[in-house]
Amino acid sequence: MAATYQNHRAQIEAILMGWGMPSETAEKTADVIAWADLHGIDSHGLSTMTMYHERWKQGRINMSAEPRIVKETPVSVLIDGDAGLGHSTSILAMESAISKAQISGMAIASVRNSAHFGACGYYTEMAAEADLIGLVTSTTSIIQVAPAGGTEARMGTEPISFSAPGIEGQPFLLDMATTTAAFGKVRNKFNEGLPTPNGWLVSRDGLPSTDPLEVMERGGSLTPLGGSPEGSYHKGYGLAVMVNILSACLSGSTLITSPMHMKQPHGQDISHFFMTIDPSIFRDIDDFRTDVATLCQTLRSTRPLDPSQPVMIAGDPERRHAKERWKNGIPVGKGLRDKIRAITLEHEIPWLLD
Amino acid sequence: MAATYQNHRAQIEAILMGWGMPSETAEKTADVIAWADLHGIDSHGLSTMTMYHERWKQGRINMSAEPRIVKETPVSVLIDGDAGLGHSTSILAMESAISKAQISGMAIASVRNSAHFGACGYYTEMAAEADLIGLVTSTTSIIQVAPAGGTEARMGTEPISFSAPGIEGQPFLLDMATTTAAFGKVRNKFNEGLPTPNGWLVSRDGLPSTDPLEVMERGGSLTPLGGSPEGSYHKGYGLAVMVNILSACLSGSTLITSPMHMKQPHGQDISHFFMTIDPSIFRDIDDFRTDVATLCQTLRSTRPLDPSQPVMIAGDPERRHAKERWKNGIPVGKGLRDKIRAITLEHEIPWLLD
Repeated sequence: MAATYQNHRAQIEAILMGWGMPSETAEKTADVIAWADLHGIDSHGLSTMTMYHERWKQGRINMSAEPRIVKETPVSVLIDGDAGLGHSTSILAMESAISKAQISGMAIASVRNSAHFGACGYYTEMAAEADLIGLVTSTTSIIQVAPAGGTEARMGTEPISFSAPGIEGQPFLLDMATTTAAFGKVRNKFNEGLPTPNGWLVSRDGLPSTDPLEVMERGGSLTPLGGSPEGSYHKGYGLAVMVNILSACLSGSTLITSPMHMKQPHGQDISHFFMTIDPSIFRDIDDFRTDVATLCQTLRSTRPLDPSQPVMIAGDPERRHAKERWKNGIPVGKGLRDKIRAITLEHEIPWLLD
Repeated sequence: MAATYQNHRAQIEAILMGWGMPSETAEKTADVIAWADLHGIDSHGLSTMTMYHERWKQGRINMSAEPRIVKETPVSVLIDGDAGLGHSTSILAMESAISKAQISGMAIASVRNSAHFGACGYYTEMAAEADLIGLVTSTTSIIQVAPAGGTEARMGTEPISFSAPGIEGQPFLLDMATTTAAFGKVRNKFNEGLPTPNGWLVSRDGLPSTDPLEVMERGGSLTPLGGSPEGSYHKGYGLAVMVNILSACLSGSTLITSPMHMKQPHGQDISHFFMTIDPSIFRDIDDFRTDVATLCQTLRSTRPLDPSQPVMIAGDPERRHAKERWKNGIPVGKGLRDKIRAITLEHEIPWLLD
């Protein structure tokens, strides 16, 4: 079963409004969540609604949050997310970073007192569409990654996204967890009854494993990108710390290593970092775009390992998904579908996915 | 044999001056190169002098380069390196990014028409010492990394360095190639007659290998961080493209994928990116430093896999080396020592390493 993008997005918006979110906020939030599903990033789409549902029922999400600006300069803005979901606050933050960079040349929006904000790539794509470079990082709620050389999970998947405008409609758009694999991909393997590839997980004793349950239930950890000491997983670990510094330390949010992580009296205090750079402070924007486009096109033309799988650049797989799903609809697996159906029944929300 | 840091540094400076570099430039350049050796980053220290020697003899390094500012705003500066070695130009660039961030809150120095600049960490440490966040990237001369899913090398090791001030004298200081391993580490394995660990290399057909010669002589490639498709090496590949966009596309330098890469009539046209952020545009700098320090200290206290190997944060291994080598001197292997001795004899330069 695959609903149209429009119905899929409308279902998300209807649920958010059913939970008491004002319509303007729900519109923006549904945009970000449905964008992830449209682009094949299923771990950050409709599937996150079940997590939001639980946290909202625990009183940990302020559905009528009104983000406010705490501090501002011509190149910076610090925003308090008022304990709401992160999506609409993050759109506000990236819009602010974009308009400041258009005047000052570069800018950062730092956000605290927020929550999960969906897929980072939605926000960096906003920057690319405004002819800017975008860099986004975010802290995470779930502690599931052990530092290189350690056995205890101390960090999350701590994502990084980077974009740059090139060919119209085809920005370079990197969006990556700093782990070998994102937790959502492990959960998806579990949901399908499959083992995880080598190098994704270690048990609670630090031993390699391919059983998703090691991380989901038995106290094991995801590996930082690199997967092992010989694979240089200290680099993935280092990038994860960088994300925490940019997101949490700059904004003054609860550190993921703090005993108060996810235990603040109100909300979750997740933090985000949104940076924009206007390339025209260095050179003509068209020359910059041409060079980015040339770089990407040359890389795409590399002789592939498998002739049926051309080399891609970051953003290509997601655009391919979006094109296909825009045409054929967004598939939702039975397990997730049943959970979403139950949520709509529980709160008397219209069902739009048939 | 281990010379004192002072003699080691003086030897480098003497050689640079013997090649015709003005003393002020040679002082700065020797500082950066000797910093790498002191901190155990042997691949970016004295060993690079043999490469500089070859390129200088080929007429590809302007020893009397005078970098000039091409374009400037309150948050940015574009610098032309005048085809010189990258080190002193990069000190100038980072000094400029630091002073601009101290006034404007953040800044970028973009450098084109430069060359190899040593270890990135030298420059990000400058930012941390000025109570700023630092981010540095650079393009590279040697094409030796295949894109994810490709068999032809199209990129270099494309390094990233990030720093943030925390405990006095112990900044978080990440300095990493975006490959599983840096080429210098492969070269060191070869020099020692050792194979490389699994996942570092692929042959020219894209098959995994542990023979350093696959990359050094037979047209094979280094792997992007992640090492394999299942290890998510598309992430290391994506980071490498990001480095090229920030360094080359922003500054308007020759793309590493261009047929003119390393073939410009003068110099090498390597490019760099130096960014600084003043955390005090968001919050009190002491609060920021305290949070960075707490984050690092908590990570260090993680239960280790090997009780004799405490968990570290980026910058710790290099500081440990620096402490030890400051006391006991900087060791130089016989192979490298002979090469450096030959250079001093060829150009009648004083020999200071006995």
